[in-house]
Amino acid sequence: MKHHSIIDIIERKRDGGALAPDELQWVIAEYTADRIPDYQMSALLMAVFIRGFSPDELTSWTESMLRSGEVLDLSHIPAVKIDKHSTGGVGDKVSIPLAPMVAACGVAVPMMSGRGLGHTGGTLDKLESIPGFRTRLDRDEFVGIVERHGLVLGGQSESMAPADRRIYSLRDTTGTVPSLPLIASSIMSKKLAEGIDGLVLDVKTGVGAFMKDEESALALAKTMVSIGQLHGTKVLATLTAMDQPLGQEVGNANEIRESLDVLAGAGPEDVVAVTLSLGADMLVLGGVSVTREAARDRLVAAIESGAAMEKFQEVIAAQGGDPAVTEDASLLPAAPNRHELIAARGGFITVCDAREVGLAGVRLGAGRQRKEDDVDHGVGITLGAKIGDRVDKGDVLAAVQYRDQARLESALQFLERAFTIGDDATQPELIIGHVG
Amino acid sequence: MKHHSIIDIIERKRDGGALAPDELQWVIAEYTADRIPDYQMSALLMAVFIRGFSPDELTSWTESMLRSGEVLDLSHIPAVKIDKHSTGGVGDKVSIPLAPMVAACGVAVPMMSGRGLGHTGGTLDKLESIPGFRTRLDRDEFVGIVERHGLVLGGQSESMAPADRRIYSLRDTTGTVPSLPLIASSIMSKKLAEGIDGLVLDVKTGVGAFMKDEESALALAKTMVSIGQLHGTKVLATLTAMDQPLGQEVGNANEIRESLDVLAGAGPEDVVAVTLSLGADMLVLGGVSVTREAARDRLVAAIESGAAMEKFQEVIAAQGGDPAVTEDASLLPAAPNRHELIAARGGFITVCDAREVGLAGVRLGAGRQRKEDDVDHGVGITLGAKIGDRVDKGDVLAAVQYRDQARLESALQFLERAFTIGDDATQPELIIGHVG
Repeated sequence: MKHHSIIDIIERKRDGGALAPDELQWVIAEYTADRIPDYQMSALLMAVFIRGFSPDELTSWTESMLRSGEVLDLSHIPAVKIDKHSTGGVGDKVSIPLAPMVAACGVAVPMMSGRGLGHTGGTLDKLESIPGFRTRLDRDEFVGIVERHGLVLGGQSESMAPADRRIYSLRDTTGTVPSLPLIASSIMSKKLAEGIDGLVLDVKTGVGAFMKDEESALALAKTMVSIGQLHGTKVLATLTAMDQPLGQEVGNANEIRESLDVLAGAGPEDVVAVTLSLGADMLVLGGVSVTREAARDRLVAAIESGAAMEKFQEVIAAQGGDPAVTEDASLLPAAPNRHELIAARGGFITVCDAREVGLAGVRLGAGRQRKEDDVDHGVGITLGAKIGDRVDKGDVLAAVQYRDQARLESALQFLERAFTIGDDATQPELIIGHVG
Repeated sequence: MKHHSIIDIIERKRDGGALAPDELQWVIAEYTADRIPDYQMSALLMAVFIRGFSPDELTSWTESMLRSGEVLDLSHIPAVKIDKHSTGGVGDKVSIPLAPMVAACGVAVPMMSGRGLGHTGGTLDKLESIPGFRTRLDRDEFVGIVERHGLVLGGQSESMAPADRRIYSLRDTTGTVPSLPLIASSIMSKKLAEGIDGLVLDVKTGVGAFMKDEESALALAKTMVSIGQLHGTKVLATLTAMDQPLGQEVGNANEIRESLDVLAGAGPEDVVAVTLSLGADMLVLGGVSVTREAARDRLVAAIESGAAMEKFQEVIAAQGGDPAVTEDASLLPAAPNRHELIAARGGFITVCDAREVGLAGVRLGAGRQRKEDDVDHGVGITLGAKIGDRVDKGDVLAAVQYRDQARLESALQFLERAFTIGDDATQPELIIGHVG
């Protein structure tokens, strides 16, 4: 590779100039090889944060990160392989019922998920509340499970997109996280390294999302769809609301229980709606349905026939978990104590702030305040009312399952702030739009 | 000191917000104490580079750097103490004749200078071409020489403004050098730590200066004057042209010879003009002259009487050098070979590019390409013609004193590019304006 000057590159981006594909590729390669130190990379990241990336720069940056490590080859698996990614929200357990539903319809789902950080939960943490369930799989095991069962629910391998992992951790400590091109390239480099044929994105917007406003969320969605297209991978994105939590349950075992409800045909309306919408995109991308309507019918049928639940049982067993939890949710961990948050007045719920609920969950122990924290799988929050619901004074707004009084009190500071009761019933939009 | 979050601070500056005095003080203190890593500091520096500092932020930043180490106390010396600083140019040997001229007029000059880097030379390197001359003085020696002789020509002590030293070296590798507030605070934190009563600044502008255009140079001058005022130290700044080298000589021993010419009353007009202008400011700040005109007369008298040359001999002897060089310039080192650059046509010199001449000098070995390089005191360039001069075809444009053929050839690539011969005689402006 041609040698470049990192200082020239930093200075050009600092002054709003454009970087060439081979320069960006060189930066990523040298940084990954420890030949560019963190202090130069962080200066460049700050310049990128403020000056941005053109579409061409973004493509080169993403491709270079994806090529910085192992790229999975799943081409020997005949089924079309589609993954789904959410930009993260509170109560967003959609991946868990979605993957077996889609797999039951004949599309392979080699799903790689993340852990909770900040106010949002993580699919891996939730899955690990199933006794025995292992999400750390090596490559052969990961590939073998997709081959045999048409789905797998694992974590990102350390050997995939290592540049992204290092850059993300540097961004986390240098004030360069909420940058559209850096977020888009981070997500897409990891997803495109999975060797998938298509990707469905759930881009969250609202107080509980990283992108607070629709405009930024739409820009992020368009950017990620376009990175996928330029790479030759089909991507569809859906913008969904994250002003209030999705569903009634927040927490790890809590969200597994609600996921089982969805697979049993009894999930809350909003979780079901988002799951069917994203699942329909996956079936269309996977080529097993021509229209989204036909795809929805097929997904509903997979629930009604029990095929989706069977797939989930299959994958739980394949990953070392106890499939009996699907029939007896009391096998899931549960903290011993319960506290109810009571409505101080009657009226309609006008705000049920996803971020505050999420932070309450973190304080209870369901999430992480720092990366190295352990999560408590048995604590969580069950919402008794959501936006638009009528409540009377004394009704339960939320039931908290907790282990430790101090943590409950810390959580309640956030949870109490989450609710506003007013006089008007409003029904918020849930699925805001589609891109791709 | 109250604890702050470095990430909050980086994010606020990234988004164009203002930082409080105690936040800036905390950043400098923690960075100096190794509790903020380089990668966070470089992200902050890039944000400062792009977003800037308000005057209040700049004052706090500078004061914190100056207080990061030893602050010299010269208050027991009865004379008024004035230093001079130049932002750096080519052939800029002004400090060398200036310091003894001013000291001969009764103002104490505790001068702390730097080394050459990039295309510019450094006063310390030039002085060290005097056999035996030591510029590395410990504090007691530095103070003792000012006490006894009214001047000293030393380097910055490692214990003064250590935060600036570390931040400067980080800026050097992270594309954050040419920032007005960072340049101004770097210069002023070091100068204000010298315990001086007043400071005279020579802010260079033109192709051979760090500030290429007058507008930026003026802004830098105003910023530095204002930092001084807020600190309670009187500062006067002069904007001078650095499109062509100052004087005829570029190189270490070369510039000592030309400095001796100035002290002997025979220096080139431009060097003498800048020296007298800055010297006048120093005498006025020092309170020994009321007007700049009276001050100039006094400086001229110090040359004519030989008092300035005597002061220089005194300080050379005090710092271990051989004062005989002042009477016999052949005691200075000289490289063995000479090459002449010849005019290919007749006409008037319209360009004599200071940057190209400076880079030619560096290639010869008179300056440094990297910090750790040694300088060759005996190589240099004597300009035969400068802007506005008439030349005939075959005239000597420049004579190069060199040691090594490969270095000569490398230098000539720059030197040949430096000159343009045209048909019109132009006389460039030298002293552009005053601030303060």
